[in-house]
Formats: sequence, C-alpha cells, structure tokens
Amino acid sequence: MSETAAPHGYIHNKDDYLRRLRRLEGQARGLQRMVEEEKYCIDILTQVSAMTKALQSFALGLLDEHLDHCVLDAAKAGGSEAEIKLKEASDAIARLVKS
Amino acid sequence: MSETAAPHGYIHNKDDYLRRLRRLEGQARGLQRMVEEEKYCIDILTQVSAMTKALQSFALGLLDEHLDHCVLDAAKAGGSEAEIKLKEASDAIARLVKS
Amino acid sequence: MSETAAPHGYIHNKDDYLRRLRRLEGQARGLQRMVEEEKYCIDILTQVSAMTKALQSFALGLLDEHLDHCVLDAAKAGGSEAEIKLKEASDAIARLVKS
Amino acid sequence: MSETAAPHGYIHNKDDYLRRLRRLEGQARGLQRMVEEEKYCIDILTQVSAMTKALQSFALGLLDEHLDHCVLDAAKAGGSEAEIKLKEASDAIARLVKS
Repeated sequence: MSETAAPHGYIHNKDDYLRRLRRLEGQARGLQRMVEEEKYCIDILTQVSAMTKALQSFALGLLDEHLDHCVLDAAKAGGSEAEIKLKEASDAIARLVKS
Repeated sequence: MSETAAPHGYIHNKDDYLRRLRRLEGQARGLQRMVEEEKYCIDILTQVSAMTKALQSFALGLLDEHLDHCVLDAAKAGGSEAEIKLKEASDAIARLVKS
Repeated sequence: MSETAAPHGYIHNKDDYLRRLRRLEGQARGLQRMVEEEKYCIDILTQVSAMTKALQSFALGLLDEHLDHCVLDAAKAGGSEAEIKLKEASDAIARLVKS
Repeated sequence: MSETAAPHGYIHNKDDYLRRLRRLEGQARGLQRMVEEEKYCIDILTQVSAMTKALQSFALGLLDEHLDHCVLDAAKAGGSEAEIKLKEASDAIARLVKS
C-alpha cells in the first residue's frame, strides 16, 4: 500500500466481484438441493465442474487486478516492497496452479 | 431413481455431502464479506484456493461413490448399460481434470 | 490380471500411445532448444502449457482404456479384485485431478 | 533479446532449467519403455502425474523469474510496455491455471 492508501485493484469492480460470489453461493445452494433430491451423481459432478471454473475465473480476474495495481505500483515505488509483493503474488499463483 | 431401484452411491453419506456443501456456501459468503470489507487481494485468493480444494475433494468423494456403486453395479449387470456408465464417468473425470 | 493374462486395455492402441509419448519427448527437447537459445519466457510458457495439455490427454486416454478393460473385467469377475481395481483407479484419478 | 539488452530472468539459472528439461525428456522416454513393456496402466499413470508435477514446477519457476525480472523492469520503466508485459504474464498464468 502506498500514498494515502491506494485502494486494492479489485475495488473498481467491487460490484462485479460481489455478483460473481453471490452466483457461487447460489451454485453451492443448488448443489445442496441436488443432493437432497438425490439427483444423479454425474449431473452433480457437472455442476461442480461449472462451479470450479467460475471460482477459477474469479481468482484469475482478482489476480489480474492485483498485478495491474498493487504489484505495478509497488514495482514503480521500487525497493523491498516490490520484491515482497512479487513473492506474495508468485505464491498465490502457485497455489492457484496447484489447486 | 427411487427407493425401489438401487440408490445412488452417495446416498449413504448424504449428510456428510450436505455438510461439505454448506461449508462451501459459507466460504462463498465469507468471500463476499472479504470483498465488501475490501480485504487484501492475496488474502482473498488464499481463501479461493482453499474453496477450490474443498470443491475438488467433494467431487472426488462423489466420483468414488459413483464408481463403487452405480458403475460397479452396471458392470456386473453387463450389457450396454455398463458401457454407457463408464463413458459418462470418463467424461466427468475429464471435466474434473481439465477444470 | 486374470484368466491367462488378459492384456491391459491400452495394448490395442499401443502404437498410438507410443506416438503421443514420442511427441512429448520431442516437446521436452524443443523446450531445451528454446532455453539454450534464450527464447522469451512467455513463449516457453506457452509451449509448457501445450505439453501439459498433451500429457493430460495421454493420461485421460489411458485411464479410459483402463476403466473400459481392466476395471470392467474385474467388476464382472466380482469379489475383492473389483474393489481393489476401483480403489486403484480412484487414487489415480485423484492424483490426476490434483496434479 | 541479446547480450546487450537486459537478459531474460531465467538466464541466471539456465543450467538448472536445462537439467529439469532433460529430466522431463527422460521421463517421456521412461514412459515409452513402460508402454513397450506393457506395464500396468496404473503404474504408467503414476509416472504421468509425477511428470505433470515436474512440468508445473518448471513453469512456476520460469514465471517467477519472468515476474521478478522482465515484468519488474518494465514496471519500473513504466509506460505501455509495463501494461503489455503484465497482460502477457496474466494470459500465461491463466493458461497454466486452466491446463
């Protein structure tokens, strides 16, 4: 963070991110309904794959904004802050790739 | 599917599956709170990775039960039903591996 | 394995599998050339993604044949062999999904 | 890129990257041997998972160096070059996460 609290990158699209998350919450509830109604396993798995993709896409969007704002700003400011931000971003990317 | 026919594999653990899905729903709500409170992107991404892993583990559990019950039963019965079930399972596995 | 050594499912397509693996070997050699010639990181990463997809597709093909032959045969034969084969397949699927 | 321009990040570890790629080439050859000798499908799949992980780890290492050098340098220099580099990196990350 820098000059008088530059906001996080995603803030500009906060509503869009909240909308995606509410949809994910709805997907989790839809899956509960499918299990309660004892729907066919394969149909449940299809919904799980869709939900995983939505989650992945949410994460990639957030990461983009983070690189474009927080990391870029830190890089411009230079110093150890830039390195710390890049290390954090790398670790987050590795977790996404491996999950 | 009905009580007279062979139930889906996951039915035996229905409560466990519902519990996992309620936790996933809670994770989606927790993420909304984080975005509303403008938490740090990297912390949000960490929660997304945890949620992706939970979703993956839910899917693998469900797939296991499906193979152990629906697919095994169809295989024993033989005929084209076995092939159809295996094809369905293969497609679901491919979607999971690719998502 | 069972009655007088039923062959593995993939044997029927052995040449196709060998061809895919030779291509993967070629991709690994192509990547070495790119690194030697100090090609641009992003271009190398694009090739790595292509190679990962090829490896994934090889694995899914092999798994399909395994389910269609070894697992189906074991399921028909019944008994503990069927359970062992399914457990093995489940573990292999989990490794693929998580890798 | 040339000796006079800033070298790619991975150049500092070129030998290490070449070693990893030779090991990947060896794994692809090992898999061919397993298919030729008609080894058990599950054992082949285990090797494929190991190779996928090695490939993923190679990609994450390369991406790290790319962010730490090429992207950081472009960010410091500023201008549209920084944005282009970040967009490229984002796209490469998305391909890795989805593959």
